[in-house]
Amino acid sequence: MVVLGPNRYGKAETRIVRVTRHGDAHRVKDLNVSTALSGDMDEVHLSGDNSAVLPTDSQKNAVYALARRHGIGAIEDFALLLARHFADSQPTVHHARVAIEEYAWERNGASGHSFVRAGGEVRTCVAHYDGERAHVVSGLRDLVVLNTTNSEFWGYIKDEYTTLPETRDRMLATAVNASWRHDAPAGPSEAWPSGDWDKAYDRARQALLAAFAETYSLSLQQTLYAMGSRVLGDCPGVCEVRLSLPNKHHFVVDLTPFGLDNDGEVYLAADRPYGLIEGTVLREDAPDAGPAWE
Amino acid sequence: MVVLGPNRYGKAETRIVRVTRHGDAHRVKDLNVSTALSGDMDEVHLSGDNSAVLPTDSQKNAVYALARRHGIGAIEDFALLLARHFADSQPTVHHARVAIEEYAWERNGASGHSFVRAGGEVRTCVAHYDGERAHVVSGLRDLVVLNTTNSEFWGYIKDEYTTLPETRDRMLATAVNASWRHDAPAGPSEAWPSGDWDKAYDRARQALLAAFAETYSLSLQQTLYAMGSRVLGDCPGVCEVRLSLPNKHHFVVDLTPFGLDNDGEVYLAADRPYGLIEGTVLREDAPDAGPAWE
Amino acid sequence: MVVLGPNRYGKAETRIVRVTRHGDAHRVKDLNVSTALSGDMDEVHLSGDNSAVLPTDSQKNAVYALARRHGIGAIEDFALLLARHFADSQPTVHHARVAIEEYAWERNGASGHSFVRAGGEVRTCVAHYDGERAHVVSGLRDLVVLNTTNSEFWGYIKDEYTTLPETRDRMLATAVNASWRHDAPAGPSEAWPSGDWDKAYDRARQALLAAFAETYSLSLQQTLYAMGSRVLGDCPGVCEVRLSLPNKHHFVVDLTPFGLDNDGEVYLAADRPYGLIEGTVLREDAPDAGPAWE
Amino acid sequence: MVVLGPNRYGKAETRIVRVTRHGDAHRVKDLNVSTALSGDMDEVHLSGDNSAVLPTDSQKNAVYALARRHGIGAIEDFALLLARHFADSQPTVHHARVAIEEYAWERNGASGHSFVRAGGEVRTCVAHYDGERAHVVSGLRDLVVLNTTNSEFWGYIKDEYTTLPETRDRMLATAVNASWRHDAPAGPSEAWPSGDWDKAYDRARQALLAAFAETYSLSLQQTLYAMGSRVLGDCPGVCEVRLSLPNKHHFVVDLTPFGLDNDGEVYLAADRPYGLIEGTVLREDAPDAGPAWE
Repeated sequence: MVVLGPNRYGKAETRIVRVTRHGDAHRVKDLNVSTALSGDMDEVHLSGDNSAVLPTDSQKNAVYALARRHGIGAIEDFALLLARHFADSQPTVHHARVAIEEYAWERNGASGHSFVRAGGEVRTCVAHYDGERAHVVSGLRDLVVLNTTNSEFWGYIKDEYTTLPETRDRMLATAVNASWRHDAPAGPSEAWPSGDWDKAYDRARQALLAAFAETYSLSLQQTLYAMGSRVLGDCPGVCEVRLSLPNKHHFVVDLTPFGLDNDGEVYLAADRPYGLIEGTVLREDAPDAGPAWE
Repeated sequence: MVVLGPNRYGKAETRIVRVTRHGDAHRVKDLNVSTALSGDMDEVHLSGDNSAVLPTDSQKNAVYALARRHGIGAIEDFALLLARHFADSQPTVHHARVAIEEYAWERNGASGHSFVRAGGEVRTCVAHYDGERAHVVSGLRDLVVLNTTNSEFWGYIKDEYTTLPETRDRMLATAVNASWRHDAPAGPSEAWPSGDWDKAYDRARQALLAAFAETYSLSLQQTLYAMGSRVLGDCPGVCEVRLSLPNKHHFVVDLTPFGLDNDGEVYLAADRPYGLIEGTVLREDAPDAGPAWE
Repeated sequence: MVVLGPNRYGKAETRIVRVTRHGDAHRVKDLNVSTALSGDMDEVHLSGDNSAVLPTDSQKNAVYALARRHGIGAIEDFALLLARHFADSQPTVHHARVAIEEYAWERNGASGHSFVRAGGEVRTCVAHYDGERAHVVSGLRDLVVLNTTNSEFWGYIKDEYTTLPETRDRMLATAVNASWRHDAPAGPSEAWPSGDWDKAYDRARQALLAAFAETYSLSLQQTLYAMGSRVLGDCPGVCEVRLSLPNKHHFVVDLTPFGLDNDGEVYLAADRPYGLIEGTVLREDAPDAGPAWE
Repeated sequence: MVVLGPNRYGKAETRIVRVTRHGDAHRVKDLNVSTALSGDMDEVHLSGDNSAVLPTDSQKNAVYALARRHGIGAIEDFALLLARHFADSQPTVHHARVAIEEYAWERNGASGHSFVRAGGEVRTCVAHYDGERAHVVSGLRDLVVLNTTNSEFWGYIKDEYTTLPETRDRMLATAVNASWRHDAPAGPSEAWPSGDWDKAYDRARQALLAAFAETYSLSLQQTLYAMGSRVLGDCPGVCEVRLSLPNKHHFVVDLTPFGLDNDGEVYLAADRPYGLIEGTVLREDAPDAGPAWE
């Protein structure tokens, strides 16, 4: 007997730029919004009856319309606004998940209307709302960092396939992919998470950077744990941090065939393979995550 | 109080090509292998003590060495071989996850030594092994398919943001990302999954293609369910199928401003946004998934 | 004194799928079309006066409309049709360049309406037309091929930075990027190139594959020259072939630390850096290329 | 009769990170270097005789070794150093082309050893050297900029396929790809180009940004010309500028179906198709480019 399991559907990657024009000093928010809904969706799978389905095209339209109506502040607030809109307005929709990426822009010179894309990391968030409770995860990806020293790697297992020499000084580089879960309120829908998301983001980003720079590292795992702990320590209301850190290997090039030494001066930056260190750091009393990470 | 949560580490994307030379008729297997281990890893996170850590470099070496020793047949068998190697050989490693992608090659003409990469979908698998039990998920991604007719979309919710007209005939296109979980044995490690993985793969792939072609679709969800059900029906030993289907929109271009009709002849193939339909189809008696999908 | 040099403008990457419905057996053409025009464009650069400018949006519309009106056969014919349309219909447009990529689809089973994208190489063409003469270049990219033997590399210069050992047997792999120029007619616009482009494409592709498989290679340059010569020999009307061949290195993994030999069995497929071999093979009497390669 | 035409070969995308350690304040240069040589290469193509060929592997080694020996200052200087090395040291090599991309890093906090990758644009250069004369082109790519106002588009040709409404206020966005050619000396090899490349780069980048912000634009061509002219005006020794500017369309979303106006507040950021404006601006007395742009 075949049955339908977990499912969701929505519009992915709606690209929206929202401009606010206060006199000559404009402001731009540049987002990539993905919505996903679930609920009474048995029939659409079994028979193709769409009567419970809010089209993904309508979801896209709602993104644009609500951005016009309410403006866009912090992406977490906009994600919650959208999630609430979908879950509260359609009886067949019991759960909404909204994921947003934000691309940063900086002012181009003194003019109020010209901007340069900042490059660097992408800010992210995912909000869930089921008509009663909301969960919010904030994060970033592609924050590429590198330490030229203060990293060692030794004392590891040597099995029959181990040829790696131990080192007391290596380059350590990674592209930080981090997300952090906010405490969710215990109460009903009115009491959903709310806060100064932008300030929390700046704090978390700064905590990641500071912990990476300041940790004397004996392993990337140790650095990961230090980064996660620092975010928990510096960001009230954050109860769990997940990190995925590719170890972007930089190998010292052997120049002895050319009569040259190479004491940490010339490195080969490798593509693949790479180490991949993934881990979670959380408060011991962190509430149950519910669907937050899904 | 901060604690360490779930974690794993390993070598990602080890690219290996294994050649078998039987006389003049060579054979190539072209894989991308990612290993991830977990176990007694508290200390490496907390203090940087690496005594429980098998370096990712050694994991990479093991991929190459075991490919030499044992050859590579079906990727599921190679993934299980590697997972068992890591979990069984190191006391501090309690769990191994091995993910493999395979790129297909076809013979280039009559020569036995020349090949053309096939393009099209990538075959995938993920194997987990914890010293006692194994779990195997097989799959594919980027199988791009398109139906020029036999697809409708109507009868959906019309909310205040709905402008999409109903249609009784639309183009339906997607890039299939599918994975299917195999029944895991109840017993100890000797009884891990084993079977004719290549044959099972061919059956599952064919089931996906046939169901896509033959389903008269009233919604992409209906097509998804039909595809998953067909895999379950055609592949003994498969207990669960997960599908992620982007709805790659093809819009009929309005040519009336140019005095031309367009009855399903000229389409604009859009990039973003796209619909995204995700769902699970499983046997009612499917055993618990354990870590299979992680 | 600052002056305007060569310039062009147009609409890049118009994605069009054209369906032909003969009873139940449908046919799809899936293209990516880029148009670029030049002519009396001094004023638009100097003062922003657009009176000589046909908008890129109109160019896109023309792609769709002409596909509806005339259908799409070989991409070279469609490129010429478009180029002629632009250069002949607007007095300020003196030159049109149309570049097209084609993605291949195969039938999915017996149904006439279901298709699978073929993957593999992308077919390409570029057509130029200036109101009098046309030039056509056809080609392909990303045709990935590999020989497991019949390739050597030795006898090269050994300078102070050479450490590479000579080899009498190596793997040779590349992603073929090839384009071939067709003879252009000497006469006026009525006599533009025309021919059975599809047949010529199949011949050229087959020539590239056969030459790659059959050449016993002492260097990738030698293989390149053999491939170009074969296209010239097999394809009447082709006067010049350009090839760009990345040498996708596959290194024999040293398994001696593990007590294993490795006689051409296990290879590491490297990403970067890669060799890059570029060259042109042409008929001695090839007519002047004019703008063909621009 | 088939003949060999223009050709070159080399090692593409050698990734090198060069660290300079002055006490605790380290410095990193992160480059992607591609070398290409040409010369007496008939035999290697015709017969596979490699006696004139310096292996691409040796070219890669030279990149690392020369970086160790001489350090890396401005990428233009390093490119010239490499080009001269290849063309001057091997009699069979008559011409060397070296292309370099540079990825920028910023300090991560106060520590001297921790860095954050800057994102944003990539700095580029290409140097040619033939044993006598050198040519240098500098540039950047992926400098993404956006103006929220001061852009119009009207007065263009309306042909039968034109439906685009004229606008007196649109968003203008592009990803700047620019390169600028430096005057080459007339004399022999000793007198190759040399200068404060870093300062010239900063000036050119700033000129591009300022011209984009300050030009009231009636067409992207006009903006392109203004950008090129500004670089020529601000950067002594630059004789030619080439620009490729994708018009990254941002469409005002029609919100009237939802009872909402949208006066330049909510935009859809489109992917494809996009306009593509390419043009050259040069000094009237610019010397012949020679191979500079190849």
